[in-house]
Amino acid sequence: MSDTPQEARGPEPVRAVWWEEGALCAVDQRRLPEVYQVMRLTEAEAVREAIAGLAIRGAPAIGIAAAFGLYLGMRAVGPKDWDARLSALADAFVGARPTAVNLAWAVRRVVARAGGSRDPERLLAEAKAIFEAEREASRRIGAAGARLLAGVSAVLTHCNAGALGTAEWGTALAPLYALKEAGQVVEVYADETRPLWQGARLTAWELARAGIPVTVLPDGAAAVVLRQRRVGAVVVGADRIAANGDTANKIGTYGLALAARHHGVPFYVAAPRSTVDLGLPSGEAIPIEHRPAREVTHVGSLRVVAEGAAVFNPAFDVTPAELITAFITDCGVIYPPYAKTLPAALAESQSNAE
Amino acid sequence: MSDTPQEARGPEPVRAVWWEEGALCAVDQRRLPEVYQVMRLTEAEAVREAIAGLAIRGAPAIGIAAAFGLYLGMRAVGPKDWDARLSALADAFVGARPTAVNLAWAVRRVVARAGGSRDPERLLAEAKAIFEAEREASRRIGAAGARLLAGVSAVLTHCNAGALGTAEWGTALAPLYALKEAGQVVEVYADETRPLWQGARLTAWELARAGIPVTVLPDGAAAVVLRQRRVGAVVVGADRIAANGDTANKIGTYGLALAARHHGVPFYVAAPRSTVDLGLPSGEAIPIEHRPAREVTHVGSLRVVAEGAAVFNPAFDVTPAELITAFITDCGVIYPPYAKTLPAALAESQSNAE
Repeated sequence: MSDTPQEARGPEPVRAVWWEEGALCAVDQRRLPEVYQVMRLTEAEAVREAIAGLAIRGAPAIGIAAAFGLYLGMRAVGPKDWDARLSALADAFVGARPTAVNLAWAVRRVVARAGGSRDPERLLAEAKAIFEAEREASRRIGAAGARLLAGVSAVLTHCNAGALGTAEWGTALAPLYALKEAGQVVEVYADETRPLWQGARLTAWELARAGIPVTVLPDGAAAVVLRQRRVGAVVVGADRIAANGDTANKIGTYGLALAARHHGVPFYVAAPRSTVDLGLPSGEAIPIEHRPAREVTHVGSLRVVAEGAAVFNPAFDVTPAELITAFITDCGVIYPPYAKTLPAALAESQSNAE
Repeated sequence: MSDTPQEARGPEPVRAVWWEEGALCAVDQRRLPEVYQVMRLTEAEAVREAIAGLAIRGAPAIGIAAAFGLYLGMRAVGPKDWDARLSALADAFVGARPTAVNLAWAVRRVVARAGGSRDPERLLAEAKAIFEAEREASRRIGAAGARLLAGVSAVLTHCNAGALGTAEWGTALAPLYALKEAGQVVEVYADETRPLWQGARLTAWELARAGIPVTVLPDGAAAVVLRQRRVGAVVVGADRIAANGDTANKIGTYGLALAARHHGVPFYVAAPRSTVDLGLPSGEAIPIEHRPAREVTHVGSLRVVAEGAAVFNPAFDVTPAELITAFITDCGVIYPPYAKTLPAALAESQSNAE
């Protein structure tokens, strides 16, 4: 038993988003690790703002949130206004964050499968189905990754691709939770992940409370961790995977992949099928969100960048497929050549599901 | 003319350390960019604390400061206690920061050239000679680097190897000041340099006030700057260069060098001869300082790392010689094979000086 009060730790196991009594509940991730606070969102605009403002973040989690947001925005809309309102609302959600394809994927899936019914309850049912599918995908990623990482004593990760970014165990961290459940503890080195500290704040928080040893490092120290062979693998999440395997993920991932390659350390990308965008042939076409300078210039109210300097703040970078050892997905572990294996794995799992 | 008050900007040109009316004056670099404050240090222990606590930082600057600190600690010591006190004081300074060899180099030079005299004024004269030598070295580095970088429109740098780290123009930034003086403005991309923000706080501050355009980025975004060909070269300083060219510098330098190599961008290390340690055959023997976890866990009083996480905080890393395109030194630009060219350049310049 822990002495830490429930308010600071939150319930077990940790969840990022869930549906409860007519509201989308979400942990406000801007306030972790100091404060564990659950937001109850009952309006579409509040959900959109939570996504755009990063209170809810993580590619699968923002897709889930947007799906429920569509229901919240449409539940009182009659048939006459339905089509126009649904279309406008879908555009608003898709525009909230441009890089993670899960957002657009979830919105399009809800609209395609339930939009024509003009029945809000059908939208809600589809949102719940997406939540369950992502939950199941997270478990499958965990199982596939656990087999791949069996025998590895430590891994390096970047940003937060854990329980706080999806519906259950996360993506990059899912194999570690699966291994923990099986009695194998894998140590984690977590890049702090500037400018928004998702590694320092979120990955460290959820791993520490799960009893998985976690060591936080400045992003610039990752190459030393690799050089010193402190880890047997790098595992990261993804915001969008193009058809050839090029992968957009949090800024800093690309440099990490270069260092991993130089040192011969396997570099794995963990993601559900909702992150794969077969419509894009390569990573060059992935839109990269540039975020406000203030994320870099200030930490809280403290200014850390001298006045008079400009700021370069892309939220994501693209790691070319050739630097990725394998994808850990809900369709299993996928190896190169990705231009063949990624579409094939998705098609096979799709036909199995039907 | 600028409207910015003198108190916030400090005098022109900026200086890190200087001797004035019986005191070592130093800008308190922990307080920049918010506050420009000059410390007047008149006791050896105050100088040692300023070095250990990073109020004075930068490899050449801490060497200069320690040289004056030796005088301050010995000026009232008589012949009877002289040798023992000088030896103890020298050890105390050398132990203040283990990685930058300039500190040990300056202390040993003062002791070797003036210690035997048992005359405090001889120590002071030697400290002043070191200051002037580093000032001259900085100008020479600027001139050599300006020729090398002529035609380059932008460079990427890491940490602060500028005027705030030495006696005049700095090392990595010296070529940019030299080019500015000659009418050529080179834009600078400055890694923010976690955990102590030397790029965001110091490099951005001194370049902005010098009228050189500077853009600050999270360390993790540097690989994207290189990939997008935003810069024609990377220029960094050094804390210790082994005889084979392996170079210790601020944590994050090694990953940057790997990314520069991958993209075919020249990677230059700028340093005075006092940074070269011919006594060390390779970088493996360079001692790496590990600094307190709190530098990573907190920004000011704000905690950014979740409770329960460990911290990995090496202050420096070692970039292997094979990733370094050339050294920009006060003995000119030095190219591989460094195991031959570095000792040769230093020996030649030594014999020219004698």
